[in-house]
Amino acid sequence: MTRKYNFSAGPGALPEEVLQQAQAELLDWHGQGLSIMEMSHRSDEYVGVAAQAEQDLRDLMGIPVNYKVLFLQGGATAQFAMVPMNLLRGASCADYIDTGIWSGKAVKEARRYAQINVAASTAGNNYTSVPAQSELQLTPGAAYLHYTTNETIGGVEFDYIPDSGDVPLVADMSSDILSVPVDVSRFGLIYAGAQKNIGPAGLTVVIVREDLIGQTLAGTPSMYDYKIHADADSMNNTPPTFGWYLAGLVFQWLKRQGGVEAMAELNRRKAAKLYAAIDASDFYGNPVAINNRSIMNVPFTLADATLEKRFLELAEAEGMLNLQGHRSVGGMRASIYNAVPEAAVDALIDFMQRFEKEQA
Amino acid sequence: MTRKYNFSAGPGALPEEVLQQAQAELLDWHGQGLSIMEMSHRSDEYVGVAAQAEQDLRDLMGIPVNYKVLFLQGGATAQFAMVPMNLLRGASCADYIDTGIWSGKAVKEARRYAQINVAASTAGNNYTSVPAQSELQLTPGAAYLHYTTNETIGGVEFDYIPDSGDVPLVADMSSDILSVPVDVSRFGLIYAGAQKNIGPAGLTVVIVREDLIGQTLAGTPSMYDYKIHADADSMNNTPPTFGWYLAGLVFQWLKRQGGVEAMAELNRRKAAKLYAAIDASDFYGNPVAINNRSIMNVPFTLADATLEKRFLELAEAEGMLNLQGHRSVGGMRASIYNAVPEAAVDALIDFMQRFEKEQA
Repeated sequence: MTRKYNFSAGPGALPEEVLQQAQAELLDWHGQGLSIMEMSHRSDEYVGVAAQAEQDLRDLMGIPVNYKVLFLQGGATAQFAMVPMNLLRGASCADYIDTGIWSGKAVKEARRYAQINVAASTAGNNYTSVPAQSELQLTPGAAYLHYTTNETIGGVEFDYIPDSGDVPLVADMSSDILSVPVDVSRFGLIYAGAQKNIGPAGLTVVIVREDLIGQTLAGTPSMYDYKIHADADSMNNTPPTFGWYLAGLVFQWLKRQGGVEAMAELNRRKAAKLYAAIDASDFYGNPVAINNRSIMNVPFTLADATLEKRFLELAEAEGMLNLQGHRSVGGMRASIYNAVPEAAVDALIDFMQRFEKEQA
Repeated sequence: MTRKYNFSAGPGALPEEVLQQAQAELLDWHGQGLSIMEMSHRSDEYVGVAAQAEQDLRDLMGIPVNYKVLFLQGGATAQFAMVPMNLLRGASCADYIDTGIWSGKAVKEARRYAQINVAASTAGNNYTSVPAQSELQLTPGAAYLHYTTNETIGGVEFDYIPDSGDVPLVADMSSDILSVPVDVSRFGLIYAGAQKNIGPAGLTVVIVREDLIGQTLAGTPSMYDYKIHADADSMNNTPPTFGWYLAGLVFQWLKRQGGVEAMAELNRRKAAKLYAAIDASDFYGNPVAINNRSIMNVPFTLADATLEKRFLELAEAEGMLNLQGHRSVGGMRASIYNAVPEAAVDALIDFMQRFEKEQA
């Protein structure tokens, strides 16, 4: 077995230690004689696993007691509907900040349920920055303000938490949750598909202030009602048990690494050296405003786009996988989530420098 | 490692061979240098895994070409809303057969969206049979007829496919899909949560006749629109990749066992001997009409209910897990899904006979 360096944007890399633990106990969890996948979600053992995962996430993120933590299904795409269905609470409109493809999808889905005002958009500069606080046009009476902390495709990340005043702030943190510390109390709701920085696809984590839930739009499916999930500890029906378990292993791994603060230091270092390598040469480029460059997803272009195919082939031959950019934008992209080791970034930089020299 | 006999109703037992294969390749799928969980759902490799799983399911069930096969999230509970949201198609009502707790939940959720007529109910005999075809009161103009082929909790299974005339027939097959052959062409839509007879929790399989989809109720979330999933080969957003992969391994295992026909023969033999053991003595009881006894979930009572705790403790000590009945009904229940070997049923029968003698 040779593990390669995996720069996939999602589903993305998982910590090797976590996979080893899951592998070791896959047929016999803790000597119980069955797999965690074969265990009733209502068994004492599984409920213990689930509760520990929640507690570990609470510890890692410092989640206040007046927030519910939900382990759901459907990905961020389900949240694009669940957020308005639950948080409109009688209001007719909500504000959204548009910084790229994912926030755009959130707007489109929300428009099925309410008038959506775009409080600011960076479409004008091709989504290469985030709007400043002073540029946000917030609507009086809006039910909430939604934004995407990190655009996975564009590689654009907020370097500040927008001030939405008394209006609940809602954040899609799918691609940067747990990468840096955040003050959860600033948010009304945070959601994240697991498959980038938490665990396997098919699990979605929602962190929501408990006073915001319980008033859904007419016609909301019961599985789209946060309150129903909250009241049932996310076991209104059978949850994605393996994903929840694996997320729990990732949370424990994060604690062993020193928690989110330690990960943030590592993530910033990984990103800084990769951007430095890109900036060091005209051979490579990244169009994003310096302060808004993502520390999780690093897109870059080659000055000569005809070399892209060769770049990808040679990188793959050296064991660096999934460096192609998103199909909608092209170019390259290195996703360097928590589970991507610094050695992978070092190897990529070394390869980039050698590739450039070869072409000279 | 000692694998025990697992009679869990769900999440339930998985084939040991499947778990071994998943374990062996968990850190390095087919020499690619990464886990199947870490692979983009849009990679050639993963798309191949997904397509093969669909083809194997089509082969196993003989699914006609005019049916779509979807790999979704949310469990049967999500389907309870998705079915009316998609299949009402302008009608104002639908018919449901009520045979127990799961069909009752389906009725309750569907009532959010339409007038639901109960075409027949066996509540009067405490859900110990299914209604005969002649008892079904079908409503002219109903959008569809819904029923639950097997009630996991009551242990009641249809021994015939209802004739709904020109009205599409919709079946929740969560707990008996792939246990016996069915003529898919008799159905408009079949759905099943995976965690009983297909794979891990968090995956839901939907088989739907393609002419029935594409007309959703206003306000239907995009993730609840079958057409959107069908048009995207279930990859409108990131699917539950690990569950889909593992379901594919189960489908291949089923083929190696001789397919659904061979499983049906085995399942009928397993169930017959267990019911025979129950019927052989007044010490054990099962209230379900002979023809409607489930071959997947076998509930049974002890004449002296005070012995239940001791029964469960001794069974567990002998390596037979999860025999307690559902919390809503009590008693015992042995779920004997495809992956539960005949040896497990033999061991249980042997234990039941010894337990009875001990108490004599």
